[in-house]
Amino acid sequence: MSDLPPMDRTGLEVLSAQECDRLLAENVIGRVAFVADGEPVVLPVNYRLHRGAVVFRTARGEKLEAAARRAPVAFEIDGWDPDTQTGWSVLVRGVAEEVLDEDQVAELETLGLRPWADSPQRRIWVRIRREDVTGRRVQ
Amino acid sequence: MSDLPPMDRTGLEVLSAQECDRLLAENVIGRVAFVADGEPVVLPVNYRLHRGAVVFRTARGEKLEAAARRAPVAFEIDGWDPDTQTGWSVLVRGVAEEVLDEDQVAELETLGLRPWADSPQRRIWVRIRREDVTGRRVQ
Repeated sequence: MSDLPPMDRTGLEVLSAQECDRLLAENVIGRVAFVADGEPVVLPVNYRLHRGAVVFRTARGEKLEAAARRAPVAFEIDGWDPDTQTGWSVLVRGVAEEVLDEDQVAELETLGLRPWADSPQRRIWVRIRREDVTGRRVQ
Repeated sequence: MSDLPPMDRTGLEVLSAQECDRLLAENVIGRVAFVADGEPVVLPVNYRLHRGAVVFRTARGEKLEAAARRAPVAFEIDGWDPDTQTGWSVLVRGVAEEVLDEDQVAELETLGLRPWADSPQRRIWVRIRREDVTGRRVQ
């Protein structure tokens, strides 16, 4: 048994599932990537980790709404320390879906989450059902 | 004529091309989104803006190498101030390609760019040919 953390084949430290969850819970800004008209798009979101799922808001008619139609999405957070040249990133892959249940929406409304684009249009809640979570640390 | 900055339909300030270029030149960490096996992936990169193009390094055999085969990619940078609840983001859409010209590679080597994943494997340079650059400010 070694005390060294596991590494991937490019020499990056592999973060544990617990560490990924901790980073997801501690941070509030991430990026959602999805495919629109066959091309990748990536947009920032204010998010929360709620009951194990990444949740965020978007507005009806926005690009992100299309991604909420049970489309495969990737969600990323990262951090970088320019002084030590160290960083980390967590990637969540899953399927996005609009939260339609009124009780669940009411619960999400208590999170105090302001959307990145605080549009006056009707806002919807999007939840990413996680299929895979991976994290790496650069050091 | 109004002195107010242009807004998009969700109420976000639209950044000028000059502002987008300034932000791209000032920052060093971004995220590249691409499509792998039909699903979106987004990964952090250390990048530079060089001669108007976003450039970064990756290792032979990495997921990002596949994205460098003239695939459509999206590149994103953002910033968020938790105190003022203001932020900005810039999205570059274009085609990624490996830089093969030896003179160009030699020039890129002078940028002092360390890859996010500093792999011992042979590193390649990737350039994103910009087709579209957009930016937004949240305030």
